[in-house]
Amino acid sequence: MSGITYTLNELAEKLSAKVQGDGLYRVHSLATLQDAKAGQLSFIANPRYQQYLKTTSAGAVIISTKFTKEFSGNALVVDDPYLTYARASQLFSSQSIIPKIANSVVIPETAMFGDSVQIDEGVVLGENVTIGDHVCIGPNTVIGANSEIGAHTRIEANVTLYHDVRVGSSCLIHSGAVVGADGFGFANDAGGWVKIAQLGSVVIGNNVEIGACTTIDRGALGDTVIGNGVILDNQIQIAHNVIIGENSAIAGCTAVAGSTKIGAGCTIAGACGITGHLSIADGTHITAMTLVTKSIGEPGAYSSGTGMLPHKQWKKNVVRFRQLDDMARRLKLIEDKLSED
Amino acid sequence: MSGITYTLNELAEKLSAKVQGDGLYRVHSLATLQDAKAGQLSFIANPRYQQYLKTTSAGAVIISTKFTKEFSGNALVVDDPYLTYARASQLFSSQSIIPKIANSVVIPETAMFGDSVQIDEGVVLGENVTIGDHVCIGPNTVIGANSEIGAHTRIEANVTLYHDVRVGSSCLIHSGAVVGADGFGFANDAGGWVKIAQLGSVVIGNNVEIGACTTIDRGALGDTVIGNGVILDNQIQIAHNVIIGENSAIAGCTAVAGSTKIGAGCTIAGACGITGHLSIADGTHITAMTLVTKSIGEPGAYSSGTGMLPHKQWKKNVVRFRQLDDMARRLKLIEDKLSED
Amino acid sequence: MSGITYTLNELAEKLSAKVQGDGLYRVHSLATLQDAKAGQLSFIANPRYQQYLKTTSAGAVIISTKFTKEFSGNALVVDDPYLTYARASQLFSSQSIIPKIANSVVIPETAMFGDSVQIDEGVVLGENVTIGDHVCIGPNTVIGANSEIGAHTRIEANVTLYHDVRVGSSCLIHSGAVVGADGFGFANDAGGWVKIAQLGSVVIGNNVEIGACTTIDRGALGDTVIGNGVILDNQIQIAHNVIIGENSAIAGCTAVAGSTKIGAGCTIAGACGITGHLSIADGTHITAMTLVTKSIGEPGAYSSGTGMLPHKQWKKNVVRFRQLDDMARRLKLIEDKLSED
Repeated sequence: MSGITYTLNELAEKLSAKVQGDGLYRVHSLATLQDAKAGQLSFIANPRYQQYLKTTSAGAVIISTKFTKEFSGNALVVDDPYLTYARASQLFSSQSIIPKIANSVVIPETAMFGDSVQIDEGVVLGENVTIGDHVCIGPNTVIGANSEIGAHTRIEANVTLYHDVRVGSSCLIHSGAVVGADGFGFANDAGGWVKIAQLGSVVIGNNVEIGACTTIDRGALGDTVIGNGVILDNQIQIAHNVIIGENSAIAGCTAVAGSTKIGAGCTIAGACGITGHLSIADGTHITAMTLVTKSIGEPGAYSSGTGMLPHKQWKKNVVRFRQLDDMARRLKLIEDKLSED
Repeated sequence: MSGITYTLNELAEKLSAKVQGDGLYRVHSLATLQDAKAGQLSFIANPRYQQYLKTTSAGAVIISTKFTKEFSGNALVVDDPYLTYARASQLFSSQSIIPKIANSVVIPETAMFGDSVQIDEGVVLGENVTIGDHVCIGPNTVIGANSEIGAHTRIEANVTLYHDVRVGSSCLIHSGAVVGADGFGFANDAGGWVKIAQLGSVVIGNNVEIGACTTIDRGALGDTVIGNGVILDNQIQIAHNVIIGENSAIAGCTAVAGSTKIGAGCTIAGACGITGHLSIADGTHITAMTLVTKSIGEPGAYSSGTGMLPHKQWKKNVVRFRQLDDMARRLKLIEDKLSED
Repeated sequence: MSGITYTLNELAEKLSAKVQGDGLYRVHSLATLQDAKAGQLSFIANPRYQQYLKTTSAGAVIISTKFTKEFSGNALVVDDPYLTYARASQLFSSQSIIPKIANSVVIPETAMFGDSVQIDEGVVLGENVTIGDHVCIGPNTVIGANSEIGAHTRIEANVTLYHDVRVGSSCLIHSGAVVGADGFGFANDAGGWVKIAQLGSVVIGNNVEIGACTTIDRGALGDTVIGNGVILDNQIQIAHNVIIGENSAIAGCTAVAGSTKIGAGCTIAGACGITGHLSIADGTHITAMTLVTKSIGEPGAYSSGTGMLPHKQWKKNVVRFRQLDDMARRLKLIEDKLSED
């Protein structure tokens, strides 16, 4: 709990909502309809949870106009309750920055700092780093030489940025993320591998979120580029020279191979694999665990794989999958035979 | 090698085994039947390795009663040799804790420490952390504000715990793990993403093991919960508000999406994907690389995917997979035609 | 840009190339044919990019003899332009080592150091570590007790090596990698899990590259072994007692389960799963996202999964996949019936 409280009138003003009920009612935190108690604010976005509206103990609920008749309690009435919940959640978040450079941090003379930066214990800064205003760098994070971090960006603990990485403003990078490691580039020489030095870097736009243990490799020649407003979940692998368009969202554990270009506004579910040198159209949606091996020219939803089955049933069908080409030929033979008759 | 040695009589007492042969025989380490030499203790659990029982040079072997006639060497006779091997392995492990707080560590005045804690170099502790008795925190690990760590828990090097995380007693968390990073929650606003502050946290039970680079996100509202006795391998992704029941085991690289509830005693193989808001019954087994998109109400084994084939054969069948619906319709037409005849 | 420049004559000597055009022409960096400008060196390896050879502004191009007639500009003529590009890229890489031990690093009296080592801020070294000549250990990396690191190996920031790990010479280990964490070994005792102490370690050969956030677990009994010249991309999981043969290459996010033996010269694409206790023949190629559940005795290419389709089409075929065994039986019935006629 953050210690912050708001009256419904105050929230209505901040969230452009209309109050239904007691505008002086004061809430101190957010909770789901099922869990909320007096003094808590809840919301209904998914019709599936409509049943809980009747029984909720929430002190107030964010609702859309279509629920105003069904709910007689205190409410904030808005067009898009989920979006309003998102905005409200930020009001109850206590995360703030404490401008201070920890004593243990060695500051290179070549470092450039903006106003009000927070540099925590154990942070290591390379030469010529540029840290913007109101930046927070969490404990034991390492920022490589010549890297730049834009204003209001927050980098959590134990993050690694290699040299020459550029991060925009208002980004959030979670712990364990690695930005700017070498791309996986090698030429084969009679069976052995000769390393291709990765001479490019990584450029990250503004308002980007990067999840825990996500890795974004530096370009071989030229940069890997993450567009403004992109959101990346945990354990995503972005290979060298990938380009991701603005506001695309990628869920956890998806891997994108080298030089692939993902358009703007794409939504890619978790655990997908996207092979290299492809181009994915703006607005494409890819479902969970899909393997993409060809470029996608038309937006729409794409999938691969088979549905889950009880293991025994699955095994029978998998055996048949191996006979599928044979089955198709036999089917054709029968059709030919029958058409002769 | 740990330097620790035991006679078979000593081991028999510790492991509730019966000695066959020389109870004063002394062993200094464990090895497989194929590799073991004099002075080493081995075991036979898998019948596949029975052939090696005749030729092993092991000084002694952990066997079940059914092998007592076949093996005339020194032995520890038990009901479950694999379980006894597990217990024996702990006797030969030299890992111990050295109560000491490294000089370089800055201890916040608000921190609460139990007895005999080991805090290694480079550890960073937030305000109000509570560290139980006999806890070991490895080098360069970061523990966020208000987090609690139960007695006898070991956290290896370079781990990150965010604020307000609760870890039970006798847990083991491996390097690179990140517990309590933000869940992946955003509302869409005309194409752009508005962050949903993740206001819950993570609660981890007792006797939990968490593998290297595994990530467990904090809840959006309410907590992500890992039950007592759960074992998680490396590089697993547990999204916000997931609940995992007691003693469930998950192998490497599996991803579980938000708000999914996994029952107790489940065994989930590696590289699986489990989508969000599902419920998985207690005792469910899921085979490797399965995508689970629906709740599982009945325990049993479940699978998805296709078996591996030589690439050329696979390619032919994959082409047919794309024609499968068409093939099914054609098959029905033939059946109808033949039944007319 | 590294600040390093070369004349074509100088490069020709270093790269065993023949100069076409002006041998005194000086280049300062590398770029693709599309992006290169005057003063930059480019290359053509993939015939797909042949079109750009006519329009490139590159100061010079690495070409094979078959392009000498088509390209009249400055060139370095070689047998294998991609391999030469790899070697050239290293000439333009400015990474070097600055022999120095950061002031903040606590050096155990038992540590053994070679000549010209670079130990960066925040590095933590266990007892009895052995660091070879010209080794570089990046900021906040942790090296466990008794570990050995061969000459000319570079370990980047925030890496974790557990105790007793042996790394060969001229290796490169990227940030977030964890080498030597416990393998995932447990025996079941009436529903609960009993940990099997992981008493082996990890042995890494020479000239090995390990990607960011890749995890290599220590052996249960005996070691996990990574052969000379192996290259591992990011976020790969190598379980306990896996053995990988020389010069094998594994792309990002692939997981290899315990005790599997991968031969030499294998190429395994990204996001594959390889189950435990298998043996994979030398020279095997496995395509992206394949699940390998059986040993592979013959080299060749192997695959599993289904191709990607628009979601609607895919859904129809997936429904049919569940009926596949039934379809196969019905097909057989028709064939039997027709052969009776």
